[in-house]
Amino acid sequence: MNIRNVKILGTGEYVPATTLTDLEMDERLGMPPGWSRRTTDVQSRHFAAPGERAAVMGARAAEAALEAASLALEDVDCLVCASGTRQQALPCTAVFIQEAMQAGQSGIPAFDIDATCLSFLTALDVMSSLVAVGRYRRVLIVSAEIASVGLDWTHKESAALFGDGAAAAVIGPADEAGPSRILAASLRTYSAGAAFSEIRAGGTLRHPDGPTPAAAQDYRFAMNGPAIFKMASRLLPDFARELLTASDTTMAAIQAVVPHQGSALAMRLLERKLGIAREQLVYITPTRGNTIAASIPMGLHAAIGSGRVKRGDRVLLLGTAAGLTLGGVVLDY
Amino acid sequence: MNIRNVKILGTGEYVPATTLTDLEMDERLGMPPGWSRRTTDVQSRHFAAPGERAAVMGARAAEAALEAASLALEDVDCLVCASGTRQQALPCTAVFIQEAMQAGQSGIPAFDIDATCLSFLTALDVMSSLVAVGRYRRVLIVSAEIASVGLDWTHKESAALFGDGAAAAVIGPADEAGPSRILAASLRTYSAGAAFSEIRAGGTLRHPDGPTPAAAQDYRFAMNGPAIFKMASRLLPDFARELLTASDTTMAAIQAVVPHQGSALAMRLLERKLGIAREQLVYITPTRGNTIAASIPMGLHAAIGSGRVKRGDRVLLLGTAAGLTLGGVVLDY
Repeated sequence: MNIRNVKILGTGEYVPATTLTDLEMDERLGMPPGWSRRTTDVQSRHFAAPGERAAVMGARAAEAALEAASLALEDVDCLVCASGTRQQALPCTAVFIQEAMQAGQSGIPAFDIDATCLSFLTALDVMSSLVAVGRYRRVLIVSAEIASVGLDWTHKESAALFGDGAAAAVIGPADEAGPSRILAASLRTYSAGAAFSEIRAGGTLRHPDGPTPAAAQDYRFAMNGPAIFKMASRLLPDFARELLTASDTTMAAIQAVVPHQGSALAMRLLERKLGIAREQLVYITPTRGNTIAASIPMGLHAAIGSGRVKRGDRVLLLGTAAGLTLGGVVLDY
Repeated sequence: MNIRNVKILGTGEYVPATTLTDLEMDERLGMPPGWSRRTTDVQSRHFAAPGERAAVMGARAAEAALEAASLALEDVDCLVCASGTRQQALPCTAVFIQEAMQAGQSGIPAFDIDATCLSFLTALDVMSSLVAVGRYRRVLIVSAEIASVGLDWTHKESAALFGDGAAAAVIGPADEAGPSRILAASLRTYSAGAAFSEIRAGGTLRHPDGPTPAAAQDYRFAMNGPAIFKMASRLLPDFARELLTASDTTMAAIQAVVPHQGSALAMRLLERKLGIAREQLVYITPTRGNTIAASIPMGLHAAIGSGRVKRGDRVLLLGTAAGLTLGGVVLDY
């Protein structure tokens, strides 16, 4: 085990005002009414307003998390943006979140951690270690995602999945005798699946000034759902079993599983292959869709807000990400 | 102090075969012979071949670092890409470095840490804490940068500064009684300077399908050198003094300062404002230019390779980055 006496002090969420219902999605995709709901189980998702900035969305979620923790930004000594998308190529998005929090002169260290859809989980794993060694005392982790702008509307199965939004958590040291700690974390990357989910443009490889400039299509999210599903099905059972063993716990002892809400199919995979009971699963897909890295902290925030997760409850954060990466964290909230 | 018993086990570098000399740069910029050398002190920089991939460059540097440490990739349990540019928007570049190292089925965790030009320094700070708590045993940190494809050739002062290349380091636990450790690290971000260095496109804000699509210019590096210089001049002296105090050391006790080679001007700022003697400064600008986040590990690699930095020598890694971020690490190599 690699126990860290670290506690989630507060969580927060921001969702854009605009929503797109399942029937509106059907219309936009030119599909018969009921198709997108049946295919994705998303009844409504939030979409950012035109020009709305990911960093500003992240700042609002961060402020909500601070308020939930009864803390101010000055009480935090590090700000990590943990998103799968970014606002612009350079600098990193954390800088713009700090700016949107009116803290441009604060000096609070700001950088990004990117493990695509598992960025929040990875940042929690990484930054809780820094809190444990005393490098930082309290860290604000923010995931802010605008998926809607980069959807491939000709690939209906993936376009219907995503939603926009932001979520954040503040972490800090926990009393050893208290109920909160991180029990174990695990991350595994299999780049044999690197091409299964991609946005191929936006970097140096398909730069407009380079030898192979990007086509319009390269700026959109491309996904091979069946290939991800096949690879994840094969790898997840052993991954989850090893993580539970490392945490010296069992699936039955987990009060709530907060999964990355990749797709309704991925949720069923968790139930069937890992023996997660439906009542254990925190399921926000119907009202949020897949919000990339914001998905896990949104699920956690929802479960805490509704009282489903209480102090000391054992929680499993779990998911897969482009990479292909598998990740999990077992914690006592 | 926040001492970590962590050691740099090996470093490596990769530079593309193609170089561009100062006179060739003058010609390309339409400037009189001698201009770019006088302005930037870069005599020659490496430029990636058309279509050369940042991740492949990173993989070669990583392999060199492993070889220097007499280790194989299987001996490493985490791979972090620490670059200021990325190969494509999604997934993160670490995935493609793992793929380029023929380790697609290895499962080695792979994610990115981005603090623009200080990404390597930040990753060293962060991941050494994870080694210290035992979350990972040995971590490969790789910076791989292709600046050349995104230069604004109409902004001659910045176009003349940059070079391409990759550098890597393997870190692992150090014997407490041995000569190697990390003494302290510091990072400060002032987003009041967020607009001083930018690549505005490549993310969700100026997405081609969004309401304000990027112009060709937005994909190129835009820099306000004088504003950076002014802000850095004001903040660096206190920053460096506090870091040295936190390390319980003095500038005179530092055998080598490995700076981010931002510009010749930035180097002179270090000498004048921080009282760093010329013989202390590891200066690779003349043959490398500014290689973004690869700059610091390249400098470190050069200093180790030439015997200037020996086991147990006290080293200060120091620099500024887009953000504006200041960063420093004091270590006994």
